Formats: sequence, structure tokens, C-alpha cells
Amino acid sequence: MQESMQLAWIGAASGAAALLFALFTMASVLKESMGTPKMKEISEAIQEGAMAYLNRQYKTLIPFALIITVLLYFVAAPMAISFLVGAICSAIAGYIGMNSTTKSNARTAEAARSVGLGKALNVSFRAGAVMGLSVAGLGLLGVSALFIIFENATVINSFAFGASAIAFFARVGGGIYTKAADVGADLVGKVEAGIPEDDPRNPATIADNVGDNVGDTAGMGADLFESYAATTIAAMILGNSLFGLKGALFPMVVGAIGIIASIIGTFFVRTSEDGNPQAALNVGLWATNFMTAIGVYFLSTWTFAKEGVGIGIFLAVLTGLIVNVVVGMLTEYYTSNSKAPCMRIAEASKTGPATNVIHGLAVGLESVFIPMLVFALAIWFAFWTASWVDAKYAIFGIAMAAMGMLSTAGMVVAMDSFGPVADNAGGIAEMAELPHEVREKTDKLDAVGNTTAAIAKGFAIGSAALTALALFQAYIDEVTRSVALQQAGVLTKVTEHGKEVWTLVVNLNDPMVIVGIFIGGAVPFLVAAITMRAVGDAAFGMVNEVRRQFREIPGIMEGTGKPDYARCVSIATGAAISKMVAPGILAVGVPLVVGFGLGAKALAGFLTGMTATGVLLALFLANAGGAWDNAKKYIEAGNMGGKKIDGKPNPIHQAAVIGDTVGDPCKDTSGPAMNPLIKVAGTISLIIGPLLFR
Amino acid sequence: MQESMQLAWIGAASGAAALLFALFTMASVLKESMGTPKMKEISEAIQEGAMAYLNRQYKTLIPFALIITVLLYFVAAPMAISFLVGAICSAIAGYIGMNSTTKSNARTAEAARSVGLGKALNVSFRAGAVMGLSVAGLGLLGVSALFIIFENATVINSFAFGASAIAFFARVGGGIYTKAADVGADLVGKVEAGIPEDDPRNPATIADNVGDNVGDTAGMGADLFESYAATTIAAMILGNSLFGLKGALFPMVVGAIGIIASIIGTFFVRTSEDGNPQAALNVGLWATNFMTAIGVYFLSTWTFAKEGVGIGIFLAVLTGLIVNVVVGMLTEYYTSNSKAPCMRIAEASKTGPATNVIHGLAVGLESVFIPMLVFALAIWFAFWTASWVDAKYAIFGIAMAAMGMLSTAGMVVAMDSFGPVADNAGGIAEMAELPHEVREKTDKLDAVGNTTAAIAKGFAIGSAALTALALFQAYIDEVTRSVALQQAGVLTKVTEHGKEVWTLVVNLNDPMVIVGIFIGGAVPFLVAAITMRAVGDAAFGMVNEVRRQFREIPGIMEGTGKPDYARCVSIATGAAISKMVAPGILAVGVPLVVGFGLGAKALAGFLTGMTATGVLLALFLANAGGAWDNAKKYIEAGNMGGKKIDGKPNPIHQAAVIGDTVGDPCKDTSGPAMNPLIKVAGTISLIIGPLLFR
Repeated sequence: MQESMQLAWIGAASGAAALLFALFTMASVLKESMGTPKMKEISEAIQEGAMAYLNRQYKTLIPFALIITVLLYFVAAPMAISFLVGAICSAIAGYIGMNSTTKSNARTAEAARSVGLGKALNVSFRAGAVMGLSVAGLGLLGVSALFIIFENATVINSFAFGASAIAFFARVGGGIYTKAADVGADLVGKVEAGIPEDDPRNPATIADNVGDNVGDTAGMGADLFESYAATTIAAMILGNSLFGLKGALFPMVVGAIGIIASIIGTFFVRTSEDGNPQAALNVGLWATNFMTAIGVYFLSTWTFAKEGVGIGIFLAVLTGLIVNVVVGMLTEYYTSNSKAPCMRIAEASKTGPATNVIHGLAVGLESVFIPMLVFALAIWFAFWTASWVDAKYAIFGIAMAAMGMLSTAGMVVAMDSFGPVADNAGGIAEMAELPHEVREKTDKLDAVGNTTAAIAKGFAIGSAALTALALFQAYIDEVTRSVALQQAGVLTKVTEHGKEVWTLVVNLNDPMVIVGIFIGGAVPFLVAAITMRAVGDAAFGMVNEVRRQFREIPGIMEGTGKPDYARCVSIATGAAISKMVAPGILAVGVPLVVGFGLGAKALAGFLTGMTATGVLLALFLANAGGAWDNAKKYIEAGNMGGKKIDGKPNPIHQAAVIGDTVGDPCKDTSGPAMNPLIKVAGTISLIIGPLLFR
Repeated sequence: MQESMQLAWIGAASGAAALLFALFTMASVLKESMGTPKMKEISEAIQEGAMAYLNRQYKTLIPFALIITVLLYFVAAPMAISFLVGAICSAIAGYIGMNSTTKSNARTAEAARSVGLGKALNVSFRAGAVMGLSVAGLGLLGVSALFIIFENATVINSFAFGASAIAFFARVGGGIYTKAADVGADLVGKVEAGIPEDDPRNPATIADNVGDNVGDTAGMGADLFESYAATTIAAMILGNSLFGLKGALFPMVVGAIGIIASIIGTFFVRTSEDGNPQAALNVGLWATNFMTAIGVYFLSTWTFAKEGVGIGIFLAVLTGLIVNVVVGMLTEYYTSNSKAPCMRIAEASKTGPATNVIHGLAVGLESVFIPMLVFALAIWFAFWTASWVDAKYAIFGIAMAAMGMLSTAGMVVAMDSFGPVADNAGGIAEMAELPHEVREKTDKLDAVGNTTAAIAKGFAIGSAALTALALFQAYIDEVTRSVALQQAGVLTKVTEHGKEVWTLVVNLNDPMVIVGIFIGGAVPFLVAAITMRAVGDAAFGMVNEVRRQFREIPGIMEGTGKPDYARCVSIATGAAISKMVAPGILAVGVPLVVGFGLGAKALAGFLTGMTATGVLLALFLANAGGAWDNAKKYIEAGNMGGKKIDGKPNPIHQAAVIGDTVGDPCKDTSGPAMNPLIKVAGTISLIIGPLLFR
């Protein structure tokens, strides 16, 4: 026993190593030059805005976190501590990541200016890697350390709840922020005043660049931190039930392998001056996947040699790695501007905005089908392969598929976070009036960033789906092991694999389960509606402020009057913070009401319904939004007449712009909110499960 | 036993009585004058087009129906016969209804012209009642007659499958037809050529009016015919399992009570010249509900006196009647142009089409939540109330709630079908250049028709949801009673209510169930995408044809050249027929693949997932579309500047028109397709259930 426990130290050590590597990388990035004073000034404004947002977000969440901590304290002290540690780790990951990406934007622009594309990729990817490795490292370190202290996978599950509560707010708040700023900057600046994107005369331009960071970096990071923590803990709980301590430790060590592979993988990302940055990133990702697979093969066959299920569990982990790649490819297919779906939307723009919107909706609706089949196939395969030796191992297979998918989170987040850095670098190049070639280079990186962002979006949704399923299985496992619930008559005695066991039978034949599924299925729609409307309201305030500044600040259009950037940043921050509260309360509150009001079986139905429609809506909204965006970009690249025909606005392009605007809150606010929504419900259920005496 | 069987004759007799009453009403309507020769000519053109469409639709479906009949013949001859009878009854109901509505449009216009509003309501509502009573009458007569012949509820369940297969094609084909014609007429006629709605110079105007009939009347009628048949049979199967023959007969007699109540209810619909047609219709609906409730109370307490569960089952039926009213009210709230959701969309049109669309999507997404809660509450209440005496009756409660909801289908379809008649009457008044007051009166009726259509839409979705649940329970019941499946190891022995029984445990803990839920959940999204795109493609052909006629027919705009109406009708027909095939094959094929490929439990998951997301999408698409439509109408009523400001098009109105166009395929094609989709899957599953040996 004591010997095995040392494996937990491998998890902790790998997590710590990833964090150290992240800090070391950060230090090396900070040594790069920030370029001209103007570039430095802009970068610092963005950084200041981003930090101000993060500070206010976390400050707003403190009372909320404290109330939950106190409530959990009455259940069990270790739970309260784990919750707080989870919330704090999530916040720390946010700070580190935001610090790194906002400090690297000017440095990337300067690298593009003074050296070239290869160097610019190098700087921006290193910044992304800081975020990626902080997320994975803190996740693994947190889980391992708490497990070493409490030696119990169940009591530390509120670490995941802490992470998910923060993640939901970060996703929703960040999503509202980024779109409010974007719409404000575009609508008044680009459309009304006719000045280009990222023009320093636009008062909302700093807020817009801040938004890229708080939405794409901090939001995505918190989301995946949560998936990482929740999946690891769910797999540990299930592993512990089946194999004892070594089963609890196994997922942690899989995480460790993934982290080491991610660290090594970052060194594979290099490109020459005229090389293809996308290819360089792909090499890094494939190397990470490959090393992880090899490592897990040896670990799994060694750990489960006695039970003979090693190969089966390895194949389950491999399934997760493959799902990762396939879902990324599918997301790219449906949203890439060189593929049929996007071109069909562009084509439909010829007959105006209505047909553009209809075809975009159709692409989004259609795009859910094959990914759902892939998830279903993965569930089936992981289940089947893990149950080869004995049917009882089957459930662990699904959890390990989720763990496999998330093991490479370090690399995937790195690839995703590099995008906003490149995007910001382009903005700085524009605002600091650097030569045109610089912008061209950063644009090249930005385009790659859009693809990696699509891959990361697919990854976030897919991992949320598998995480939710792993949490669901852990919930059943938790409830099933409760003697109190057995005595209360919640559990049923069934004959399973030849022996009688007590279990929670969640039969679809039971109307309470259907009631749960109906309510759970409807919640994602409601949250999508609220967040979509929140963007509209927040953007409205932003639009008014930008208009006011254009009107009231003398000389602003001539470049002699300085716009009040800070005020726009502050308005976006205030709106995002105030609008994130209602959906947050809904996300946390409804599972409690269903669980305590309708019982353990209804809650199981609720989780299933919410997972299914949450994943469906996430795919629908993200892919529709992405496709609209790229259909517009396809036209802007000069197809179908481009932006202007004979100096007049091209109506086809105008139609596509409307579709893109519709897609903005879909893909960057409502869609991404689905992932933490389903995970919050899962982690809460895991905590309250044993208390549901009906 | 023999004595009890006589009750089946009550069902058959009531069904026949409803049919006779419908034919008698039809004859009385035909005695009314059709007005001027011009009116007669237009009406006949619409009628001809509608019949041509129906003929081609059914002709296309003949080989499909024959193949299924032959396949079913190898399972059991009575199944094959029942299927064919179901398909034929659905077709007959379609013909009777279409005949009645298309023959009454000119008569309604003439009644408005020569007598007044009260008479016009009288004629159009009587025409609707023909449709409503044919649907309910044929449903009840068919089920009762087959039951009298085969004395077995299970073998006749393919009557419902026959009805649902036809209904899916009728809904999808009708939906595509109506929107293709609508868009073609509007886009080229109203927008490009600048001529008013229903202008005789528009070549697509007849097709547009035909579309109102094939979409709203035939499509809705087939949909509800299917719900009616499927619910009755599902309730009979469950009733038979619990109570023997009297349990099988009970739902039929409930149907009989509802039909008699509907017949009497039609006499309550009368209004004076300056009366409120809406109030008149409401009186009719409430009278029908009230009489049905009273009748069922006595029937239920008498039938189940021995078991003591009479009140419980009566309350379950009452729940269905109440859900009917509540869901109708909710649909009206979310789509009425005098309520907050629509006004918010109108308000959002001020900032352009993108914000209009975003707010419309938000209204649609939001609008699912409370109806889903209502369904959940109804399921819970019906379950709870029926299980008062003994838990084993619980499942029957849900089926009887569905039956309660559908028992008044005769009246609801009558109210719904009157709408297209009034709409057509207005079109004829316009085309025949009748005095302006005539159009005003028919517009008043048409406005009421929009509200009743909203109520009927809510009714169709709600009844589809409850029908799907009843079918699901019947499926479990069927599978559970199979000794072959018990021997094959598909069933599990559990202790239920103190004794050991074999049952199909569809545990959410079983990954195959989750696989089924994921696939089932995704199918409605795919079908929505395909049908949405089909409208676009069909409309494209229509637009080109109308443009061609405007270009090539000399004197068409001056009224000297006659447009080729028939060609537009033929193009819409061809497009609708060819586009309905792919989704039809999907709807029938996927349940077969899942059932035979993945087994009985995965199919149960599939049905649940499909029901949940199907109902959610149906509500989302229907309500978003309705809200966009009425937001536009709100502006057209003179708010926010109305259609034109200072003679120039009002951009706020233009934005609302774009939203309305986006909503068209949502509310009239893709949304309505969801209802038969989930019911087709349910009726197929009921047939193949006992054959799924895994």
C-alpha cells in the first residue's frame, strides 16, 4: 500500500515539473524584446485591461466560493478544502496564462518585425505553452497533492467542483466580454465610422484585444482545467472501486505521461522562415499523442498484468486520443473556408442575408451528427475493449477514454492559446503602425490560430462530453456504495455477473427518470438563450459608449484626440461580470433542486439529458458560428466579388457579415458555455449524490 | 368477454358517426354559393393544384408502402393488413380534408361579401370541422374495426406505423411545398416586382395558396391522425396488459367520448356580425374539453370500480386536457405580437437584421423551457395519480394523459384547419378584386387563424411528446412479454412490487443505452438540417421560374398576359416530392439500424434521446419562427415606423422581414417534421421490438 502510494508522488512531481517548465518558458519569453515604446504602451494597456477583468471576476466570485466552502464544510472538512483549492488553482492557472499571453503579444510582433515568421511562431507558441502546461500541471499537481493528503478519491472530488464553478463563470463572463467588445468595436468603428480593424482611433480597440485574451485564453483554459480535474478524479473514483489504490493512482500517472509528452512535444514545434506554421504545430501534436500512447501502453500492461486487462484499458485510452484527432478534423471540415459547408453558406449569401442565415443554421444543425456518432462509437469501443476480460471493467474504459483525450491537454491548450497571442500581435502591429509585412506575417500566424482554435473547440466539447459521462459513472458508483441510501430504499438489489449487488437502477421505464431527462435537456437551451441575449445587451452599452466618444472627444477621428480606452474596458468588464451571475446561479442551482426535490434517479436522468443536449447545442452553435465567420472570410479573400464591387459595398459580402454577426455570440459565448454547464452539474451531483434519500 | 367486446363497437360507431357528421357538414357547406365566376375559377385552380399534389404524393408513396406491407406480411399477415389500412386511412383523411378546405375558400369569401363576418366564420369553421372530424373519426373507426377483427392490440399497432409513415412524408413534403411557393411568390413578386400579396399577376400565387392547404391542412391533419392512432393503440396495449380486454377497450371509449364532445362542441362556435371569432372558437374548445372530462369521469370510475383506480386514471386523462390548454397558451405567449418576446425581437430590429435574428434565436431557445417543465410535471402527475392504488398502474397513467390530450383532436384540428380556409378566402377576395371590406373581414378571420394555428402547433408538439412516451412504454411492455427475448438473455429478472418478473432494464448506467441516446439525440438535428436546406433548394427553382415568367410572358405585369400558374404548381410539387424522400428514408431506416445493429436497449435509449431533442427542436424552431413572423407583423401594423417612412422602405421593417424569412422553414418545415419523426421511430420500434435478440 505504502509502496503504491509513491505513485501519487509521480503525479505530483510531473505536475510540478510542468509548472516549473511553464515558469521557465515564461522567463525565456520575457527576455525577448517588446519592440518600440508605442508597442510596449499598447501591450501594457491590453495587459492592464485583462488583469483588471480577471481581478474583478475573481473578486466577484469570492463570496460565492466562500458560501459553498462553508456549506461543504458541514458535509466534510476535506471537501471544503478541496473545493477551495480547486477554485484557487483555477484562478492561478488563469492568472499565469493571461500574464503570459498578454505579455507576449508585443514580443511576437517584434519577433515578426526584427527576425521573421519562424521566430514569431516560436515566441507565440512558447507563450501558449505556458498556459497549456500551467493548466495541465496545476490540475495534476492539485489532484495528486490532495490525494496524498486525504488518501481518498471521493473527498477530493470537490476540487473538480471548485474548478468547474470558476470555469463556468470564466467561460460565460469571458464570452460576454469578448463579444460585447468585438461588436462594439466593429459596429461603430468598422461599419459606422469606416475605420479599419484594430485602428487606434477606435475607443473599443483595446477592449477588443483584451476580449481575445479573456475569452479565448482564460475561458478556454478554465474550461479545460475543469475537464482535466473532473476526469482525473472521476477515473480515480471508478478505478479505486475496481482495483483499489492502484486503480486510483493509474489515471494520475496517465496524466503524468501526457504532461511529460506535452513538454517534449513543445520542442517539436519549429518552423523555418518560409515554412508552414500549421505543419509545425501538427508535428508537435502528433509527437505528443504518439509518446503518450507508447507510455500508457507500458504503464497499463504493467499495472494490470495480474488482471490481464492492460491491453483493453490501453485501447480505451487510445480511443480517447483518436477521438481527439477525429473531432478536431470534423470541426475543421465544417468550419474551414476551403470546404463545402462554408462555401455553401457563401453561395447562399448571393440571395441575401436570410438565405445566408438559413444555410448557416443548416450547417450547424447538420454538423452535430457525425461527431455524435464518433462519441457513440468511442463509448461503445472503450466499453467493449475494457470488458474483454471481465464485464465489470467496462465502465472504467469510458473514464479512461476521457482521460486519454485529456492527457494531452497541455499541448492542445498551448496550440489554442497561441492564437490570441498572434491575433493580438497583429493588432499591435496595426496600432503601432509597423510596416505592412509585419502584419502579413502575424496574419499568417493568426490564420493558423483560427484552425487550432477550431481544433481546440472540438477538443473542449468532446472532452466535456466524455468528462460528463465519466462523472455520471462516478456518480452512480458513489450512490451505489452508500449504505444509507441502500437502507433508504433508493437502491435496488440486482444480480450482476452472477452475484447479488445493490445498485442504482436508472431505468428509462421509470417516469421520474424521463422527468429528469426532459428538465435536463431543456436547461442548455435556456442557458444558451440567456447568454445570447446577454451579449446583445452588453454590446448595446458598448456601442453607445463608442458612439459617445466619437461624438464628444474632439479630434478623435483625426488622431489628435486620444480615445478613452479604459472606459470601454471598464464597461465591457462591468457588463460581463453582472451578466454572468444569472446563468451561474442556474447552472449550480437546478441540479440541486432536481436532486433534492426529485431524487437520485431523476438527477441521473437530468445529467443524461443535459449532457446530450448540451453537447448537441455546443456543436451546433460553435460550428454554425465558425462556418458563418469563415464564409465571410472566404468572400473577403476576393471570392464572389470580395468586399467591394466598383467601390461600392458588395451586397453578397454584406449578407455574409450579417451571418457572421449572428454567429458571434453562438460560437464565442453560448456554445462554449455548454461545456462547463454540463460539467458543473456532474461535479455537484457527485457531491450531493450520497445525500439524496429518495 | 363477448359482452365487453361490444364496447369496441362503441368506438367503431362513434368513429363512423364522426365521419357521417363530417360528410353531412361537407354537403351543407357545398350548398353555399361560390360567388362570382372569377372566384369560382380561382378556387378551382387552387383545388386542382392541391389535389394534383396529393395525388402525386400518394402515388410516390405506393411502392414504399407496398414494400413495407410485403415485409410485414412475413412477420404476420394481420400486421401487413393493419399497416395498409393505416396508410389508406391517413390518405383518405387527407383527401376529405383537402377537398373540404379547398372547396370552402371561395364560399367563405362569398359569405363575407354577401352576408358578413358571422357567416364567414360559420362556413370556414364548418370546413375545418370536416377535416377535424375525419381525422378523429377515421382514426377511431380504423383502430376499432381492426380490433374487432383481430381481437389483439399488438398486431394492429402497424395501423399506427402506416399512419406515421404517411404522416412523415405529408409533413415534410407539405412543409417544403408551402415554403418554396411562399418564398417564390414573396421574393420575386413582392420584393422584386413590387406587387402586393396574392396579386393575380404573380405566377406563384396559386401555388402559394395551394401551399397553405397542403402544409397547414394536410400536413397537420396527417400528423394528428398519426398521434391519434398511435396513442390509442399504445394505451390499448398497456391497458390490455394490466386489465385484460376492458383495459384495451377503455382508451377507445375515451376516444369515442372525445369525438362526441367534439361534434357537439362544433355547435358552440357561432358569432354575431361584430362579435369576436376568437371567443367563439374558445367557447367551442372549452365546451369540448368540459364534456370530455365529465364523460371520462363516469366511464373511468365505472370501468375501474373493482380496482379502485378510476379517479386516478380520470385525473391522468384530465392532465392531458390541461396540458393541451397550457401548452397552447405558452405557444401563444412566445409568438403573439402583443407579448414581450415578439416585441423584444421587433425592438432588436432597430439595430439591423443580425440583432433581429439573434434575439429571435434567443426567444426560440428560451421558449422550450417552461413547456418542457409542463410536460415533465404532467408525466409526474399522471404517473403519481395512476399509481395511488397500486404502483403497477403508473405507466398506464402516462398513456391515458396522452389519450386525454388527443381525445379532443377533432375540435383542435377543426380550429386549425379553419385558418387556411380564411387565409385562402382572403387570397381569393384579392385576386377576384372584391371590395376592400371583404378582405378586411377575411383578414380578421385570418388573424384568428394565426392564433389557432399556434395553439394547434403546441397541441401537435405536446401530443407528439406524450404519444412518443406512450409508444415507448408500449415498446418496453411488448419486449418484456416476449418469452423468446427472455430466453435470449435480453431481459433481466427483477423483483418488482414483491414478485419476480422479467423486464427490459434500460439502465442509463449501461453504455449501450447512452450510445442509443447520443445517436437518437442527433437525428432530429440532421433531419432539421436536411429539410431546412430542401426548402432553400426548392425555393430557388421557384424563384427562377417566376423570374422567367415575368421576363418571357408579354404583358404579364399589365394584366394582359396570363401567368402560367400550373407550371409553378407543378414545380413546387416536383420539388416537394423529390426532397421528402431522403429524410423519409432516414426516419424509417435509422431506428431499424439501431435496433437490429445495437439491440433492444440501445433502441430504447435511441427513442428517449430522439424524443427529448425532437420535442426541444420542434418547440425551438416553431416558436422562433412564429415570433419572427409576428415581430414583422407588429412592425407592419404601424409600430416603429411601419413598412415605409417618408415613402422609403423602413430599415427596421426590412430587418424584420429577414428574420421572418429565416423563420419560415423553421416554423413550417423543419419544426413540424420533428413530430412525425419521433412517432415513426416509436411505431417502428413497437413492431420490431420482439425481434431484437440482443
